[in-house]
Amino acid sequence: MSVDPESSRKMIAGSEFIKYLGIELLELDETKAKGRMPFSEKACNPFGTMHGGSLYALADTIAGTLADPTGKDVVTVDGSLKFLEAAYNTRYVYCDAAIIRRGKHLTTVEVSITGDDGRLLDCGLFSFFRKG
Amino acid sequence: MSVDPESSRKMIAGSEFIKYLGIELLELDETKAKGRMPFSEKACNPFGTMHGGSLYALADTIAGTLADPTGKDVVTVDGSLKFLEAAYNTRYVYCDAAIIRRGKHLTTVEVSITGDDGRLLDCGLFSFFRKG
Amino acid sequence: MSVDPESSRKMIAGSEFIKYLGIELLELDETKAKGRMPFSEKACNPFGTMHGGSLYALADTIAGTLADPTGKDVVTVDGSLKFLEAAYNTRYVYCDAAIIRRGKHLTTVEVSITGDDGRLLDCGLFSFFRKG
Amino acid sequence: MSVDPESSRKMIAGSEFIKYLGIELLELDETKAKGRMPFSEKACNPFGTMHGGSLYALADTIAGTLADPTGKDVVTVDGSLKFLEAAYNTRYVYCDAAIIRRGKHLTTVEVSITGDDGRLLDCGLFSFFRKG
Repeated sequence: MSVDPESSRKMIAGSEFIKYLGIELLELDETKAKGRMPFSEKACNPFGTMHGGSLYALADTIAGTLADPTGKDVVTVDGSLKFLEAAYNTRYVYCDAAIIRRGKHLTTVEVSITGDDGRLLDCGLFSFFRKG
Repeated sequence: MSVDPESSRKMIAGSEFIKYLGIELLELDETKAKGRMPFSEKACNPFGTMHGGSLYALADTIAGTLADPTGKDVVTVDGSLKFLEAAYNTRYVYCDAAIIRRGKHLTTVEVSITGDDGRLLDCGLFSFFRKG
Repeated sequence: MSVDPESSRKMIAGSEFIKYLGIELLELDETKAKGRMPFSEKACNPFGTMHGGSLYALADTIAGTLADPTGKDVVTVDGSLKFLEAAYNTRYVYCDAAIIRRGKHLTTVEVSITGDDGRLLDCGLFSFFRKG
Repeated sequence: MSVDPESSRKMIAGSEFIKYLGIELLELDETKAKGRMPFSEKACNPFGTMHGGSLYALADTIAGTLADPTGKDVVTVDGSLKFLEAAYNTRYVYCDAAIIRRGKHLTTVEVSITGDDGRLLDCGLFSFFRKG
């Protein structure tokens, strides 16, 4: 598998939702990926902390890019997030994704989300399915 | 517990993210809630189907409103979604949330997301924690 | 798909672990299954309530029988359980499993575990993968 | 918090179910725990590989010991396992548990299960609730 972060960046740039949230892919290789999303009111719940849905969007996007850098054949099967600390008072949230297992059909990815200070905010597991 | 859908609507209207996605609370009582979100490119992944993060935002918002209609004391602890079918070719996606168990501290909510035709697209479980 | 509860019963009877726990398949058709497990110290944690592992064994066994009554081609991909109430002071715990979606490769099953009095003790989601 | 592996060993030895499976606590400190369970037909499904319920019992037991070494105040709230590889052809399966976050009420623990050769077989997340 050849991994080209630039082509993955182009792919995710094709999503208005990802652009709205400002999600960026920082690093990508065959076993791990890193991304970030700016803290912004645009991504918050009514209480002024980042909405679970925006954090999940970050995790799903970065984990999905790792699961299939070509972005063609892979769909998210499921994903869970544990919200350990509210995300606020940080310029960015960072998502680290790591391959747990890459199978013929199913790929499992571990994600963790941290703030500027490296404090762990969220963790979870995502699964992706490859057709054909 | 007194449940007032109108005050919950005001609360979620305070979130720019929820407004961006067009999430609406349709029904709310003590045991269940229903909401919807329009299909829009603004909520899609690069492949033109609704992004997992926007679907999760819908589920978390509606389940959270059910877990705590006052919106003050409850935080999402975790939430998982299984993506059964891609969401597209529908005017809205609908989220039904139902209380599984409302405990003193922990409340568990089941969610399901369907399209215009009632077809099940996603299902999952969310947990919320009440302080104090 | 032809469903024969008797052949599924024979299959699960081939497991010493399932026999140890006394898990029985009560009902099985194409969309749902029901099983039970006696309350017994043999299945308990050190605190005298049923061990999460024995409850999970019940759920996985009954959901798995539903996902593939032939017991040949299907493996459990993942399963989660939420423990809502401790299981004790009941003669049996009952597991109801229902198909959420049966796909070509992935089958999703919802499980709930109740006591003699019908009170909900646990709920969860399991996924199964069919090869070939 | 004082951690005494010996007292935790005595506690889990009080469970007939844990003894049946042969689960042992190998190491325990404030941030991580390690345990093992012998491969045995007594713990297998009808297909001769370790039953999801026995693997989950191992994970829940070791993670629970880590979440509350005193074994008095903590209950499992939920736990999920992803089954990556079937467990067989190994003398033991090993469970490593690590604290993700220890909160006042909620503690999150990551688990991974490996075979004799260190190959990752299962991974998951467990949550525990402390009363009072």
